[in-house]
Amino acid sequence: MTHWPRLTLASGPVDVPHEALRAMQQPVVYHYDPVFIEAFERTTGMMQQVFNTTHDIVILQAEAIAGIEAAAASTIEPGTRVLNLVSGVFGKFFEDYIRRYGGETIELSVPYNAAIDPDDVRRVLDVEPNISVVSLVHSETPSGTINPVGEICRIAKEFGAVTIVDTVSGLGSEPLDVDADGIDIAIAGPQKCLAGVPGLSLMAISPDAWARMESLENPVRGSFLSLLDWKSTWIEQKRFPYTPSVSTMYSLEATLRLALDEGIDNMIRRHHRSAEATRAAVEALGLELWAESVEVAGANCTAVRVPDGIEDKALREAMRNRYGVMISGGYGELAGKLFRLGHMGLSAHPTAIIAQIGVLERSLADLGHKVEFGAGVGAAIAALEGWDDSAT
Amino acid sequence: MTHWPRLTLASGPVDVPHEALRAMQQPVVYHYDPVFIEAFERTTGMMQQVFNTTHDIVILQAEAIAGIEAAAASTIEPGTRVLNLVSGVFGKFFEDYIRRYGGETIELSVPYNAAIDPDDVRRVLDVEPNISVVSLVHSETPSGTINPVGEICRIAKEFGAVTIVDTVSGLGSEPLDVDADGIDIAIAGPQKCLAGVPGLSLMAISPDAWARMESLENPVRGSFLSLLDWKSTWIEQKRFPYTPSVSTMYSLEATLRLALDEGIDNMIRRHHRSAEATRAAVEALGLELWAESVEVAGANCTAVRVPDGIEDKALREAMRNRYGVMISGGYGELAGKLFRLGHMGLSAHPTAIIAQIGVLERSLADLGHKVEFGAGVGAAIAALEGWDDSAT
Amino acid sequence: MTHWPRLTLASGPVDVPHEALRAMQQPVVYHYDPVFIEAFERTTGMMQQVFNTTHDIVILQAEAIAGIEAAAASTIEPGTRVLNLVSGVFGKFFEDYIRRYGGETIELSVPYNAAIDPDDVRRVLDVEPNISVVSLVHSETPSGTINPVGEICRIAKEFGAVTIVDTVSGLGSEPLDVDADGIDIAIAGPQKCLAGVPGLSLMAISPDAWARMESLENPVRGSFLSLLDWKSTWIEQKRFPYTPSVSTMYSLEATLRLALDEGIDNMIRRHHRSAEATRAAVEALGLELWAESVEVAGANCTAVRVPDGIEDKALREAMRNRYGVMISGGYGELAGKLFRLGHMGLSAHPTAIIAQIGVLERSLADLGHKVEFGAGVGAAIAALEGWDDSAT
Amino acid sequence: MTHWPRLTLASGPVDVPHEALRAMQQPVVYHYDPVFIEAFERTTGMMQQVFNTTHDIVILQAEAIAGIEAAAASTIEPGTRVLNLVSGVFGKFFEDYIRRYGGETIELSVPYNAAIDPDDVRRVLDVEPNISVVSLVHSETPSGTINPVGEICRIAKEFGAVTIVDTVSGLGSEPLDVDADGIDIAIAGPQKCLAGVPGLSLMAISPDAWARMESLENPVRGSFLSLLDWKSTWIEQKRFPYTPSVSTMYSLEATLRLALDEGIDNMIRRHHRSAEATRAAVEALGLELWAESVEVAGANCTAVRVPDGIEDKALREAMRNRYGVMISGGYGELAGKLFRLGHMGLSAHPTAIIAQIGVLERSLADLGHKVEFGAGVGAAIAALEGWDDSAT
Repeated sequence: MTHWPRLTLASGPVDVPHEALRAMQQPVVYHYDPVFIEAFERTTGMMQQVFNTTHDIVILQAEAIAGIEAAAASTIEPGTRVLNLVSGVFGKFFEDYIRRYGGETIELSVPYNAAIDPDDVRRVLDVEPNISVVSLVHSETPSGTINPVGEICRIAKEFGAVTIVDTVSGLGSEPLDVDADGIDIAIAGPQKCLAGVPGLSLMAISPDAWARMESLENPVRGSFLSLLDWKSTWIEQKRFPYTPSVSTMYSLEATLRLALDEGIDNMIRRHHRSAEATRAAVEALGLELWAESVEVAGANCTAVRVPDGIEDKALREAMRNRYGVMISGGYGELAGKLFRLGHMGLSAHPTAIIAQIGVLERSLADLGHKVEFGAGVGAAIAALEGWDDSAT
Repeated sequence: MTHWPRLTLASGPVDVPHEALRAMQQPVVYHYDPVFIEAFERTTGMMQQVFNTTHDIVILQAEAIAGIEAAAASTIEPGTRVLNLVSGVFGKFFEDYIRRYGGETIELSVPYNAAIDPDDVRRVLDVEPNISVVSLVHSETPSGTINPVGEICRIAKEFGAVTIVDTVSGLGSEPLDVDADGIDIAIAGPQKCLAGVPGLSLMAISPDAWARMESLENPVRGSFLSLLDWKSTWIEQKRFPYTPSVSTMYSLEATLRLALDEGIDNMIRRHHRSAEATRAAVEALGLELWAESVEVAGANCTAVRVPDGIEDKALREAMRNRYGVMISGGYGELAGKLFRLGHMGLSAHPTAIIAQIGVLERSLADLGHKVEFGAGVGAAIAALEGWDDSAT
Repeated sequence: MTHWPRLTLASGPVDVPHEALRAMQQPVVYHYDPVFIEAFERTTGMMQQVFNTTHDIVILQAEAIAGIEAAAASTIEPGTRVLNLVSGVFGKFFEDYIRRYGGETIELSVPYNAAIDPDDVRRVLDVEPNISVVSLVHSETPSGTINPVGEICRIAKEFGAVTIVDTVSGLGSEPLDVDADGIDIAIAGPQKCLAGVPGLSLMAISPDAWARMESLENPVRGSFLSLLDWKSTWIEQKRFPYTPSVSTMYSLEATLRLALDEGIDNMIRRHHRSAEATRAAVEALGLELWAESVEVAGANCTAVRVPDGIEDKALREAMRNRYGVMISGGYGELAGKLFRLGHMGLSAHPTAIIAQIGVLERSLADLGHKVEFGAGVGAAIAALEGWDDSAT
Repeated sequence: MTHWPRLTLASGPVDVPHEALRAMQQPVVYHYDPVFIEAFERTTGMMQQVFNTTHDIVILQAEAIAGIEAAAASTIEPGTRVLNLVSGVFGKFFEDYIRRYGGETIELSVPYNAAIDPDDVRRVLDVEPNISVVSLVHSETPSGTINPVGEICRIAKEFGAVTIVDTVSGLGSEPLDVDADGIDIAIAGPQKCLAGVPGLSLMAISPDAWARMESLENPVRGSFLSLLDWKSTWIEQKRFPYTPSVSTMYSLEATLRLALDEGIDNMIRRHHRSAEATRAAVEALGLELWAESVEVAGANCTAVRVPDGIEDKALREAMRNRYGVMISGGYGELAGKLFRLGHMGLSAHPTAIIAQIGVLERSLADLGHKVEFGAGVGAAIAALEGWDDSAT
């Protein structure tokens, strides 16, 4: 039987702290039991705090991709013109939903190691009429890059568009101001920077978004992908459109409690400092960052170009099989071109970063790559100066 | 703060045994970690055994309603003629999906305390041409009634229709022969008779069903509701269409292990004997079964007409608030007309049945109903003669 | 493999609520980690509240029998005259410790279905000179009987004796006023009425007791059974005499939190009402209480004489094997003479009482005993009038 | 509130794997429930395999210090002459028990960074008549040193002595052959190299040991510290002398299962390789090993002399407070002279070793010590060449 990993440093799901695992040992109760109704209500309230928003919260009971599709299904109808901003694999995927729900895609794209320029967004919106929806990805996990969501959404709102932001892995690692930035539908995942259990879509939905959904010729109701169903049941009547995932919700409550205890700003800072230390190690080892610049590099994982003479899969397997360290490779069209060092959730911490770089050094050497042992780790250690768990 | 219930005797989710809760304390790993891939594979294999089928298994990562909608979305297109058999609230709901995906509904319905007659199905299929899909509910949990799924599906197959069977609460309490009966898409839920954690759709999909899905003008792909996505990823390549619910899958593995250890036939027998004892108690207390006959009454819950002079909600609240026993009431148009005594999963057992009837007697008396204390429980005890946990 | 029991209605260990089990999923840390030191301190503080005492708390890291022996070892030396009050098996056992540590036993005993009369204690102390220690059992679990601890200890203090009270199963089911009653060493167990995990001795130790321990010719130090070791390490320096049971201590913290949330008085009342309902059922079934009078009967279990024609072991095995209900039999010299219906901890509740009596009725009938089904349960239900979980 | 540690690299208790924590979520049952009796029996059987012995197993229900005292209490009586071998703090402690139980100590000691020479043992036994008991410590955790237990015990048996070996932290990190080496009473702890939950003494007891115990003038019976009680109850009758620690026993079963799955020899090898890598790092950082030679250094922790200019406590607090890494300091008279790097249990693994050395480097620098970042880690990485989790 395969050994359990010692460190899960992948790009989500990531290791979940005991508080959030333990919560799932609470008895499964009927979803209309007062105990569960109260827990759901508390959790929704905490979600609003974690998103720092006054918007309505919908916790769709399936992985974030369902939330993203629900956002598309609920706001796009035949003929809807959608500006889809593409700086990576996930941004490109959204086009499938636009097509599925009958919309027309206007694409603005950049190479997958770069970020969307807000000025370009303005330029497109200036010339393209009747864009009702603008969609973009905050943190492109597959390439470890980010987009300036705030500036872009503020521009989109000037043009009257509804904005859909996939911040699945952005929440907790990158600053986000849902209300001030005009993010109409934000979708986050618990299993990324929050270090929660996968299986839920965490959504903040603005009045403009609700208005858009209700204005469709056939508003989406009576479907697993309907957001309006949640409005008319949970939000308005404290009922459920279907059986919620009781245990996973228990866990989410604990996850959000941990996030609020740490403070979202502290959590973001922790991810940023972890990314800096990791990039220092990458550079010291003579490896090349995937992101075209530090500004574009995200804080929850660091994508690294696969060095010449090394096979990506062999490297990851050496790390996993010999030393129990699981990292993520490239995804989709990025497969084989990059590997990703993880510092997401609990692993955005010196112990995990040092262990990871050390095992990377050992594994590169195992595969015949020339490595000065300690060079990468030493650079990371230097970059971690001033770290202090007890300060938060 | 509200007290935890002492006994969850509702109609799902129900109390989950420690083995299946404990499984969720396994570390959350990356979904492409070999440990998880192996677990998913084992679980799929066990699911096939529990369904006793050779058909492909899809474990959609959301509550069973998503699986039901996925079945509709994947097999119904504009113009599809669907025979929808309606003997309860859930059967009626399916019509919404037929409409949403452009199909035409031919309905055969009976009162919600009765079962569909297979002969009537044949009669309709004889006169209605071009029925491509026949949909029905095995166990109508809201009214505690069942349908003769096997006979009906065998007839439907004679006419070349694809059969969709909602056996969400049927699996484990009622006999089911997926392959021999020609059930093309069976959808079950872990959180009913299997006593698992909610959040998954357990599906068995026949070659005829796959062929139907691929024959649509626009086969459904690239959607959370796509079954073909699972075929082209997990089934064919051991990849996932999206991030699975890691912890919930761990739990399902334990749930299926328990089911196989007990034996599905033993599990069904346990539910049937529990239902008999419960019905004996209901009768002894002078209460009236909802089902028009014993043949129509299901084995996982017993719906009882609310007696004159008692308010349904007050009764359930007395049981829950005073004695910690949570049962389900009526649902949809059945609200206020019936309450449901539960014997689903772990609670299909003498201890739970006796406690439930005892608390029902106490609560009825609390609300001013005349009760001979011990009459119901005594009848249940008599009916439990020969019960033996150690025999299985 | 043997089935898990459905209901553990034994006389301890008993079923542990999820809160206290879940606490053991907290990571095991080094015992000098600040997290553990803080937890131990919080727990000690709560223990003082649960005992409602100002005395020092020692949580000896082994089952309560170790605490009882430690009390003996620490206060008895060659020549010490001990008045040992015996109303049951556990009281009699204490004589072994008196002997082992060189003391001389003066015994005052009553039949094992009766209680010690405080006047008799005074009479003995009046005539017996130089009694330094008086030892007694609060709740004699093996026979389900109690002693008037308060009156007895107040008398003993008049005579200058140090009092040792085994309230292992008394705490939580019988009133106890450690300080006012002059209980110098109280020993309780978490695994009885508090429904905690076994493995600890919960002790409250008065200044008089410490003085006695230090006055011995060879005060007991440097031993697992030394209480003075705890005084000089944990109490005075927040160090440990040896490695504490980290996980069990986590669980105790949760157990005490639950006790304080419920309120000890409410907990005691709950046990008393449960005992009343159980006795009503016993009487209605024509069975005979072991205790010579209701005043002597304890609130955490009800000992019942084995009826003619029934073999105790066969009865308990039928209840356990056929219906999953585990109860305790007689113990020591009481074996075969009585069986004990349990209402200790979580099971001091209508659901457990009703289920237990129902299964008892069924099992008695299985063994050929004539039973009017429902008679016992009906009497219990009647006796439970006015019960209300939500009132506490 | 204090943060949880990220890595517990102390000298026990250490981090416990999820399998052994999860086992404690099994319901607490009555200790005479067949489920528990069977579990206790399985666990005893596995303990025999882990000890690789044919001797009887006693699992005393308290921390290993109780087992050590029980060994003394059961074999030493007034007048017994005991050869106590002292190479560290724990060896010296044993003298207290010899005194407490009336024995006479003949001490053979070496400095606390050295090991006992078997030839010296022979020399003492040659000249000292009537030595009935020889006691020694296998792995002196406080100083990270070991003794050649096998050679010593074989010599002691030549002289007819009963041997008592404290292998609390030796089992799993150092080779041990209980039967062939003539170890009459071996005492191990679950919370050390086995990575189990603390609270139990794991003992293997030879026929010679039983004979010795029974030959005392007053054999120890009727006490928490009696081993003969376990012989006459559990071993001979499958009864318990008192209530066992149900949850902790569940956990032990899982712990032993993991040990057998890995293989004790693999576990020992893993500890040895971890120690080598750690020593390489210590040397590369210019720090000094406490042990006088590599042969004397144990495999479960590496004691390091506190370097000039650094205060031991400040170093450990920096590692714990800033970086969440908990290590142990010196103990007793060693306090302030050494700190201990941990590689015991789960942390005997590259990820923990690398993280630990990295955090040590960072913390030394934080305190003003001159460190070439990466030097220690680099040496450890080099020393880990050929490590392969998947090979075991």
